[in-house]
Amino acid sequence: MHTDAPVLFLHAINLIGIFVFAVSGAMRGVRSQLDIFGIIVLAVVTAVFGGIVRDVLIGAIPPESIADWHSVALAVFAGVFVFFFHRFFDRLQHPVLLFDAAGLGVFAATGTQKALAFGLSPFMAAVLGVISGVGGGMVRDVLSGQVPVVLRAEIYASAAALGCVLVLAGDALRLPPLESTLAGAALTFFLRTMALYRHWSLPRAR
Amino acid sequence: MHTDAPVLFLHAINLIGIFVFAVSGAMRGVRSQLDIFGIIVLAVVTAVFGGIVRDVLIGAIPPESIADWHSVALAVFAGVFVFFFHRFFDRLQHPVLLFDAAGLGVFAATGTQKALAFGLSPFMAAVLGVISGVGGGMVRDVLSGQVPVVLRAEIYASAAALGCVLVLAGDALRLPPLESTLAGAALTFFLRTMALYRHWSLPRAR
Amino acid sequence: MHTDAPVLFLHAINLIGIFVFAVSGAMRGVRSQLDIFGIIVLAVVTAVFGGIVRDVLIGAIPPESIADWHSVALAVFAGVFVFFFHRFFDRLQHPVLLFDAAGLGVFAATGTQKALAFGLSPFMAAVLGVISGVGGGMVRDVLSGQVPVVLRAEIYASAAALGCVLVLAGDALRLPPLESTLAGAALTFFLRTMALYRHWSLPRAR
Repeated sequence: MHTDAPVLFLHAINLIGIFVFAVSGAMRGVRSQLDIFGIIVLAVVTAVFGGIVRDVLIGAIPPESIADWHSVALAVFAGVFVFFFHRFFDRLQHPVLLFDAAGLGVFAATGTQKALAFGLSPFMAAVLGVISGVGGGMVRDVLSGQVPVVLRAEIYASAAALGCVLVLAGDALRLPPLESTLAGAALTFFLRTMALYRHWSLPRAR
Repeated sequence: MHTDAPVLFLHAINLIGIFVFAVSGAMRGVRSQLDIFGIIVLAVVTAVFGGIVRDVLIGAIPPESIADWHSVALAVFAGVFVFFFHRFFDRLQHPVLLFDAAGLGVFAATGTQKALAFGLSPFMAAVLGVISGVGGGMVRDVLSGQVPVVLRAEIYASAAALGCVLVLAGDALRLPPLESTLAGAALTFFLRTMALYRHWSLPRAR
Repeated sequence: MHTDAPVLFLHAINLIGIFVFAVSGAMRGVRSQLDIFGIIVLAVVTAVFGGIVRDVLIGAIPPESIADWHSVALAVFAGVFVFFFHRFFDRLQHPVLLFDAAGLGVFAATGTQKALAFGLSPFMAAVLGVISGVGGGMVRDVLSGQVPVVLRAEIYASAAALGCVLVLAGDALRLPPLESTLAGAALTFFLRTMALYRHWSLPRAR
């Protein structure tokens, strides 16, 4: 089953998520003045944490990024790359959070698909999707001593949740998983970057 | 086996623990000026974290609050409720920590029972009970950038441990699980609220 | 198989790791003015966290330190001992981080061995070794509100990684596991203490 095209595409999309989250963690490491090994550690942890939590919770043990070496090796590469070429990303306005937004979108959508494939109900599949999406950024922020972005008063988990709902809708309409995954990831990324650069926000408690 | 009365009662007690921990997390979110989605995230994480760690450690995978949707839905409801009606709780002296005390008592007692049912030794069952009880508050505090209440110089883990020991005593005397669970939860809640409002404390290192 | 000499030796080495990490966590608790129960909690969490994460990730569930009571009981004992006799360690220059260095070396080496025994590839076994080694100190630092030592600009994860590579080399050369484990642990401990007391460091991003 791992040889047919959609599964391969989903695996490739997942690796994109690993890469962008790793860049996000590595850029945070650069800004926190870490040495090269600290940057690699933060890149790897940010990249694999959400997916590992997802896999442990749905019972897919050992988790995907432990069972084979591609994810960790890609995250290590991203960390080394950022260490040498971070000036390339320094020009961006919010480099850490922009790459984070891409990872959020990818993991929310693929996490929902994977949870559905493991037999979870649609509601819990969306919850797992949100956990997969927000986990990496949460651990990156906690480790580097910042308030987790998921708890700042910005659109974040809500963007992930809407992406997950779009994946569920695609699944209910029996659309091809690849298309609905890409659509869900794109929706989350769009909403999150609008919040980041246009300051969209949700109501707070008075 | 899930249809006889004691098990149903234990399940109901567990849902009470979910609800009060969710209120505790949501009130922290209100006080940290989060938007409604941040409040829901903090409510859900606080409510389910301790039980998920307990279930993963004893091998009950997927964990209870992932396998069915009741816990997460109840925590989401608590988050929304607190967002609109937090003024109701604002009059309390320590709203976050009072609800935390109730959750601590419930999860310490039910966690010990569940670990015993999974064949752990009494000592390790009490350790699992303490982990179940303190986990939610620990992650709530770490995520919101505060010193975890379990590490402040107040009676907290010690109150949970005494509640767990009471559950073990009831089990050794072959008392009905429901009664010993309620007694253990009540003991923990009593000791913890005394520490909170009467400033009971334990010796520190000099 | 648990009766032959090498396995017993590895188990004994692991308990040494539990003890020194527990002392490290307890000393942090003393310095943070915790009460005796807070000190015990921090000792236990620091001692068992890395190994539990390792075991969950490789699918060894329930984890070693949950399945039997020796590790937790030893960590509780270490916490009580440090509470009463911390003056004995106060003379050291970096008591928390010196014991941490010993735990880092032991868990990196034994974690690599255990991951190899569970069939992971050498690269992923080293990754698991690093996770086992850095996990305890990471959670100790996050819980006590400090920047995790793994992310400070000091040789830390890199020392663990070199120890893991030495274990892998010993395994590839079919040396006895006990000897290569001890050699790997000693290398990590040496590099880390040199960084700690002689201020060795790696390049940072400009």
